[in-house]
Amino acid sequence: MKTLSENRVFDGVQGVYVHPSVTCGCEMTFALYLPPEAAHSKVPLLWYLSGLTCTHENAMTKAGMQKYAAELGMAVCFPDTSPRGADVADDKAFDLGQGAGFYVDASQAPWDPHFRMWSYVTGELPRLIGDHFPVEMDRQSITGHSMGGHGALTVAMRQAERFASVSAFAPIANPVASDWGRKQFTAYLGNDEADWAAHDSSLLMRDHGFDGPVLIDQGTSDQFLDLLRPETLAEAMAARRQDGVFRFQKGYDHSYFFMATFMEAHMAFHADALDL
Amino acid sequence: MKTLSENRVFDGVQGVYVHPSVTCGCEMTFALYLPPEAAHSKVPLLWYLSGLTCTHENAMTKAGMQKYAAELGMAVCFPDTSPRGADVADDKAFDLGQGAGFYVDASQAPWDPHFRMWSYVTGELPRLIGDHFPVEMDRQSITGHSMGGHGALTVAMRQAERFASVSAFAPIANPVASDWGRKQFTAYLGNDEADWAAHDSSLLMRDHGFDGPVLIDQGTSDQFLDLLRPETLAEAMAARRQDGVFRFQKGYDHSYFFMATFMEAHMAFHADALDL
Repeated sequence: MKTLSENRVFDGVQGVYVHPSVTCGCEMTFALYLPPEAAHSKVPLLWYLSGLTCTHENAMTKAGMQKYAAELGMAVCFPDTSPRGADVADDKAFDLGQGAGFYVDASQAPWDPHFRMWSYVTGELPRLIGDHFPVEMDRQSITGHSMGGHGALTVAMRQAERFASVSAFAPIANPVASDWGRKQFTAYLGNDEADWAAHDSSLLMRDHGFDGPVLIDQGTSDQFLDLLRPETLAEAMAARRQDGVFRFQKGYDHSYFFMATFMEAHMAFHADALDL
Repeated sequence: MKTLSENRVFDGVQGVYVHPSVTCGCEMTFALYLPPEAAHSKVPLLWYLSGLTCTHENAMTKAGMQKYAAELGMAVCFPDTSPRGADVADDKAFDLGQGAGFYVDASQAPWDPHFRMWSYVTGELPRLIGDHFPVEMDRQSITGHSMGGHGALTVAMRQAERFASVSAFAPIANPVASDWGRKQFTAYLGNDEADWAAHDSSLLMRDHGFDGPVLIDQGTSDQFLDLLRPETLAEAMAARRQDGVFRFQKGYDHSYFFMATFMEAHMAFHADALDL
């Protein structure tokens, strides 16, 4: 693992690191914020999964998380959204291929050699973080935006023992019934829709929910409401009697401005679940 | 004037607008954040001048100002850093030409037809803002970063009646004695160094200071300390007995992470001067 940069911010350290990934078969970059407390003791870890077209960098620079992470004493990890490189498959569309891994393990050509973001964020990267940084791997929570909200919810519901809480901003909430999902799952996972269900947060919510609190924020002026399908997840949460809150935020859209506005509340929510 | 975008953030509106500039002879883009209070009454205005290579967008997305502006009830204007366009002169260097206006009015070819950022930020843009938005033009303050810190300080000291307070993050503090200054002033203003003095905040501070409070933050790990020359401004402030604080922040560099860390303190400082 190599350090690409480390910047002091809110008395902690915002690092960017690159490592050869066995899972993805390429170099992978991630960012990790360590709060001031991490200089002398281990701290809990919040995962932030990003949306379409993003790298590790977008939320790191635009979501304003470091201030709250410093105050709360929480590390934040920002993984990339896909494998990358000249020898990694790609597509001209912004919503398929590099920058659009959808947090699944591809079984189909040409994607299967590298597009293994499910295993990367659930296995390899957590092990790497736990081995190299002062984080408490038995105190984790997870959040994300859009495609990353989809990732956060599906990872949390399938690795429930790992996370104290999950939240999402404008998640792709029902990808098996959306053009943000059907296209990508067909490409990555193949035509058998039975294989898709494990990656749909509305279906997972209906099936078994999450053993901890859930917080969802969705802007009412989001330009992608038809693709996100928040109503399906809201219905599933209510039907499940899920411990959770689904909030519609009037006038907010799909941008980082929306996320920055409600980030403090999400981080306080996770801190509470993590007993911080 | 045309609206390029408006996003809801912290219950206010982050707008981006473009207008034909008489001063610069081209279309100019600026961003303006209006806090929730501006929906029903006029609010004070804080100017944020950006550094080399930046547009209106960098601080708007990375400095985290909207949260504090919303809480304090303050508008924030983010001008661009130069004229732009295919028919506007430019240079291959990042620190001359487009993205590097240095907040001066050029008198030399090929720059003089468009590079009039001094007149733009001291005259045309304030008039436009005052005419079109609910801001109190008799309650203004100004801040900036690097080249924009230079701009904020020089504009404030030469238009003292306009501003209640001035602050800067890692300003280019003594451009007449720095490679970030001598090169650009020669290109834009010509070889007569007497014409440069009106654009050097250390010289202006020695000569007459600012009739209000001044706050400067400078990181001790800034990679550009030799070019910024903070010691010259600190000495001038002390010699002048300027009402002000010059803070060296241990371990911080020149990045937006540094600025984001201390933005809350700067905005509270301006709010205090503006009687908010």
